[in-house]
Parts: sequence; C-alpha cells; structure tokens
Amino acid sequence: MEKIMLNFNNMGVAQSEIAGIGDKIADAVKAMGDKRSKMAWRDLPYNQDAVVCDILEYAEEMLPKIKSLVVLGIGGSALGPIALQQALRSQFYNLHNQFRDDFPQLFVLDNIDPATMLDLLAVIDPETTLFSVVSKSGATSETMAQFMIVKGLLERELGAEKARRHIVCTTDAENGNLIKIARTEGYKTFYIPSGVGGRFSQLCPVGLLPAAFTGVDIKALLAGAADMDKMCQNADYMANPACAFAILHYLAMKQGKNITVMMPYTDKLKFMADWFAQLWGESLGKEGMGQTPVKALGTTDQHSQVQLYVDGPDDKIVVFLGVEDLDVYLQIPEDFTDMPSIGFLGGNTLDELLQASQKATEYALTKAGRANMTITLPVIDEHTMGQLFYMLEVATAFAGELMGINAFDQPGVEEGKNAVYRHFGRPGY
Amino acid sequence: MEKIMLNFNNMGVAQSEIAGIGDKIADAVKAMGDKRSKMAWRDLPYNQDAVVCDILEYAEEMLPKIKSLVVLGIGGSALGPIALQQALRSQFYNLHNQFRDDFPQLFVLDNIDPATMLDLLAVIDPETTLFSVVSKSGATSETMAQFMIVKGLLERELGAEKARRHIVCTTDAENGNLIKIARTEGYKTFYIPSGVGGRFSQLCPVGLLPAAFTGVDIKALLAGAADMDKMCQNADYMANPACAFAILHYLAMKQGKNITVMMPYTDKLKFMADWFAQLWGESLGKEGMGQTPVKALGTTDQHSQVQLYVDGPDDKIVVFLGVEDLDVYLQIPEDFTDMPSIGFLGGNTLDELLQASQKATEYALTKAGRANMTITLPVIDEHTMGQLFYMLEVATAFAGELMGINAFDQPGVEEGKNAVYRHFGRPGY
Repeated sequence: MEKIMLNFNNMGVAQSEIAGIGDKIADAVKAMGDKRSKMAWRDLPYNQDAVVCDILEYAEEMLPKIKSLVVLGIGGSALGPIALQQALRSQFYNLHNQFRDDFPQLFVLDNIDPATMLDLLAVIDPETTLFSVVSKSGATSETMAQFMIVKGLLERELGAEKARRHIVCTTDAENGNLIKIARTEGYKTFYIPSGVGGRFSQLCPVGLLPAAFTGVDIKALLAGAADMDKMCQNADYMANPACAFAILHYLAMKQGKNITVMMPYTDKLKFMADWFAQLWGESLGKEGMGQTPVKALGTTDQHSQVQLYVDGPDDKIVVFLGVEDLDVYLQIPEDFTDMPSIGFLGGNTLDELLQASQKATEYALTKAGRANMTITLPVIDEHTMGQLFYMLEVATAFAGELMGINAFDQPGVEEGKNAVYRHFGRPGY
Repeated sequence: MEKIMLNFNNMGVAQSEIAGIGDKIADAVKAMGDKRSKMAWRDLPYNQDAVVCDILEYAEEMLPKIKSLVVLGIGGSALGPIALQQALRSQFYNLHNQFRDDFPQLFVLDNIDPATMLDLLAVIDPETTLFSVVSKSGATSETMAQFMIVKGLLERELGAEKARRHIVCTTDAENGNLIKIARTEGYKTFYIPSGVGGRFSQLCPVGLLPAAFTGVDIKALLAGAADMDKMCQNADYMANPACAFAILHYLAMKQGKNITVMMPYTDKLKFMADWFAQLWGESLGKEGMGQTPVKALGTTDQHSQVQLYVDGPDDKIVVFLGVEDLDVYLQIPEDFTDMPSIGFLGGNTLDELLQASQKATEYALTKAGRANMTITLPVIDEHTMGQLFYMLEVATAFAGELMGINAFDQPGVEEGKNAVYRHFGRPGY
C-alpha cells in the first residue's frame, strides 16, 4: 500500500537543534509508550471489528429507506466527518445524485444558526431522513438543543413510534443524558469509547457512521490508520512522520513561530485544515502555550494570504498538503498563442498548473527564508486518509509531551459554558 | 437607516496609549485625505449610476435565459461575491429553488482543482449557463486557464456565435488581454476602474454583477457604503469606526499581537472572515510587518478554537461580528425537564442560545485578559453589508498609513508567479 510522505527539507532546522533537545525527545517517546494504554484512540484501528460490522449492517438496513443523513454534532463530531466526505466524494455531492450513486445527502449542522436549521428542515423530508446525534457527554448545549427540536418535529410529523427509527445516537456507553434518553426512547446507539475525546474521535463511530452512509470504505480507512501506527513506532524519530512533525513544530514554537498554516493544494483536502485546526489548537493551546492554526487553500490563497506569508513577519510554518496523483485531467486548449501572458497555459492540464503552483509557493517561501514542510499523499483514498488522520493525532499527542502539557483536556472553555448556563438560569450556576 | 456599531471596551487599551500615538494618527488622517483621489475605490458608492443601470439591464435580459451563473475568478473577484451572497441568501441557495425564487444557482470557481471543475461542468447545462470571467489584468493564470477551457467547451457545444452570449467579462477597460479578447469576440464587458485593486473591488462590478444576478439590491448596498463613508469622516477618530478599528489593531500589533481573529456569530457572515482575511493579510503583510488573519465561526469554533484563544498565548485580538436581530426564531421544546444539564434549554430559541454564547465568549476572553472587540450589525441586509465592506476597506487603508506601508500592492507574490511561468516555459522567464 502507498504511504504518505513528509518532506521537511525547507524547515531550515539544523541537525544540532534537534540533537539539542535529544533528551526531551527521548522522554516524550518514552511517555508516549508508557501512556499508550490510556490513549484509547490509538487502538481504534485494531479493536473495532464488531463495531464496523454493526455500522455496516445498520447502513445496509437504513440506506434503502433514506435520502438525507443529518448529523447534529459540533467540534470533532462534525469536522472529521466533513473532512473525510469532502476528501473522498465530489464537491457537488449534495447537489446531484450522479455524484452520490444513491447514497443519501449529508448535512452536518455544526452551528445553531436558526436560519440554517429552519431552511434545512424546510427542504428535507422527515420520512426519508436519518438524524445522527453525536455528543459524548450528552450535554453539548448546541447539539442537544438541535436534538430537542428534531425530536419534537419527528414526533409531530411521524408519530412517536416511527420517529424513533429516524434518530441514531453516538455517545458514551455509560454516562450522560444522551445514552439515558436513547435507552428510554429505544434509539439505535453507537458508542464513543471512554478515553476517546471529541477531537480524537474520527476513527470511532463518530467518523465511521457518516462515512459508511456516504459510501466510504471504513475498513480501508482503519487499515490506513493501522499502517500509520506502525510508521509512528519507528525509533528513528526523524523517519517517524508523527515525531518529525511534532519535533519540528516544537522547535518552531521555541523560536517564536506562534502560527502554523495548513495549506492543501486540492479542494478535496480543504476541510482537513479545519479538522487539524481543532486538533492542534484545542489540544496544545493552554497554559499560555500553543500555536494558532490557520487554514489556507492552494491555489486560492496565493491570491489572498501568500503575500503575507512571504513578505510579512517570519512568525509561522506553512504545512503544504499535496497529492502526487489527483487522477483527474482537464486540458487547457491551445488558444491565444499570440498572447504571451496566457498563451503559455495552452496544452497543459489544470492538474499540472496546480502542482506547479504548489512547487512555486514552496520555492517562494523557502527563498524568503520562511519555514515550510510538505505532506504528500500518493493518492487520496480511504487508506491514505486513514494514515493522515492518525499521523496528525499522534503528532499532536507527541507535541503535548514535548511541551509538557495535557493534550487531552480543554479547561479554557469552562468559563464560557458556565456563563451560558448562568444566562439561562441552569440550576446550580 | 440603521448603522453598524463598534464596541471596543474589551480591548484593554488605555486612553494614554492612544494619545501616545496622536501625531501618527493625525498624520494618517491627513494622508487619507490627501490620497483620497488616488483611492478610486472610495468613490464607488457615488459614481456608478450608469454602471448600476447597465448591470440591472443586463441582468433583466439574461436572467430569464439562465439557470446557473459561474464566476471564474480568484482572490477579491471571488471572496466578496461569496461573502455577500452567503450573508443575504440561504445557506441552501444552490440546493433548492425555494431559496432562489428562480434566480440562477451561483458557482464561484476560485480554485483550479480539476475534479471540482470537471464535476461542475458535468452538471451545468451550457445552454442555460452564464460564465462571468473576472480578472483585472487579464493575466491571472488560474482564471484565464478556466476561461480557455470554458470557451472551448461553449464553442464546441453551442457554436461560436451562440457561445459568446454565454460569457461576460469584468476587467480593466484599457489594459490586458481579457479586454482585447472580449472586444475581438464581442463579449459583454464590465469594467474595473483603474485605482481599484482586487481586494478593494467588491463595490464595483466585480461584486455588483453576481449580486444583481442573485437578487441582491445593489443600490442599497452602495447606499450603505456611502453612509459608512460619512461615518469614516468623523474627526473624532475613536467615534470613527474605521479609524478606531485601525488604531486599536495597530496598537495591538505594536504589543506583539500578530494575529487577528474574525469570529462572526452567524453562518451568514462566515465568509466575511474570508474576505477580510485577504483584505487585511495581503494589504498589510509586507516588509516584515502585518498581522495574520484567522477565520473563526461562533458557536462552532467554541468547540475548536476558543480553548486556544482563552488559555493559549496572549498573541491575538478577537473581532466578533454579531447581529442584533437575526429575525429568525426557532424554539427549543420544553423536554427533559428532569435533566438539569439539558432541561434548561427548553423554551428558549436558538437565536437566544447563539446570542448568549457570543456574550459568554466575549466574557470568557475578557476575564482571561484577552483583547476583543465587537462589530454589531443591527440586521443583515444590503445596507448594513455595504457599511461593513466599506468600513473594513477604509480601516485597512488607514492601518497601512499608521504602519507606513503601501496597502495597495502585493510584491511578495511575484516570486511564485515567476516560478510558475518558468516551469511552463513562458517566453522571457
């Protein structure tokens, strides 16, 4: 199977800098080993045979009955599913069945804008819609508010008995209100294993369920993650993609580079940058430390952000996501050969223009002394996407060890949550 | 007419700090006055009566004939049109005609991913599609490559004579290849006035044409901008929204805050953050200076980025975009009253939850000593959007004056362009 590759020649890091934190790296490697049993997300590539069967059986049962899948979830419950679907399916998936092959439309409601929700509810047909409610704690205000609205709507339109077959819950198996409600109401349920936090949940049912419902091969996704897990055990840490990614980011942070830009050069990977922004930002942004993730897209942002990246402050890393073979060719006709500024385009393909633009941006940044690295996927498929998700998760955990912080909590959001509870008069707040 | 409001109480800036740069501010105010005649984009609210007529007449002629408008453009040619359409039309505009009222679907191809373009060309019908080609220089490789592909397709499918009525060009009136081609081929044309650069072009035909084709009242948009222009002439510069925005950002940059986050609390304004990211990043990111714009969305990013903003490094400003009256109400049913963690939601509306969440995030940031300001739109309509676009443009120009840089060029992107030309063997490179 083909493996994703990291190229960090343009990071401008000397071997001596890496050697200089050798002890810290060794400690982090040891800690990642010692704590592996506590990082339940690391085992997801291996221990889900029964879960995968359950999801595939449920999909087989439901798919003939539905035309829309609406995910109610926010944060990791939304970002991973969106990123994966965008990577593997057409950008116009929802718009035309020819890109869906009769799989349902996928809507992810990861905000509580009332206009968006009302408009969506106006155009889906409850009879042919499955609502997937995703909240580990069962107390995520946004998701639970949406669930309450949907439950009311379904019960009104379909009656309570039928309504319950249009709701599936993915939540903790033991704790929280959502599992209680699901048991009382008799909803189909999938579980988020304990030890798997929201932003590390893409390879559990949170990500697998919507993937299976949109025609993604979830076994291949997990197999890709398992292959990456092996690569992430390479003791030569600069040949270990997760370690190298973490170490180079850590060194950059120490140099004051407080921004990391993820810049895919294909529409398909645009939302990987959103998924990564949560993973990196929420895991490592604490105790006054952390790096602000920025989402960019090539070539689009060459006309928006590259001026800043090349000529602005030297305060960031750019991580390019490239694809060796996009497998789609669209030729630019030979025309306007008398006009030098555009005639040179003729005869080439958009793919070549995209690839050349990525190389040119790498070159321009490097020439300006700006740190950049490139992650290259040989192709975009389930197997490489599984590798990419898993690699970035391990890299984030590893960076947490280097920084000496807990990458798995999010204490900084409590203040805001409490303020909302107080506003609404939740008892005890 | 209702006016947008700025609240900067949470910026943590002392009056003395502002007084301390009083001379610099006075110089910037003077420069903005002296250079006004060179900033042609400042006059767009006033000098386009004929242009508006032309656009409306053209729309009246074409709208009955088309079902899709495809914009070929990148950077400012794409970001403004997307931001405005998302603000004023349903998030599901393209998906269902009930949100379009028979206006055409709008597709903005601002990247050259061949899969996206092929998929789009597979589902639109050339007979009922208008392609709007936007490039001031007529030499934007991405846009011109797409144009060449589309021209070939239309001529093959419809014949050369009919094809030319499916292409409209927005470009410089005198210079560049696109105007030459348009004249030779007999395409309908609109002009980008000289002195109006890409990122300052939303209020000229670049933004007005797609707006008019999607049912937006472009006269009201320009009237809003004119109203803002008056507010931006207030000599009390902290009561002048553009000056205040620029001054507070400038002071923050001087304190080392190299990041500015724009965080709207409604899906409708999500893409304003993308438009602003180009405006601020490309205008001010030069000579080693500048601030990296980050796009966020409330409440979504409370579950992704707010941990970092509250608890990570104190290196950023958060600019909230709020809306006083979203004008859409969706009530959460009273249910689960025996479950305190979710029962408190019942009886409230999603609108209230969204507004309370914004206030809570402002509070949490402020409590953690993190600078934030809020721009509030009384409602989202053409008039307030015109104000918002214009205010941020003037603020950017003003910030350029404070920083002592030219906000209107982009020298840092030449290196990358040249590398692409060399790769493709463009003569002379």
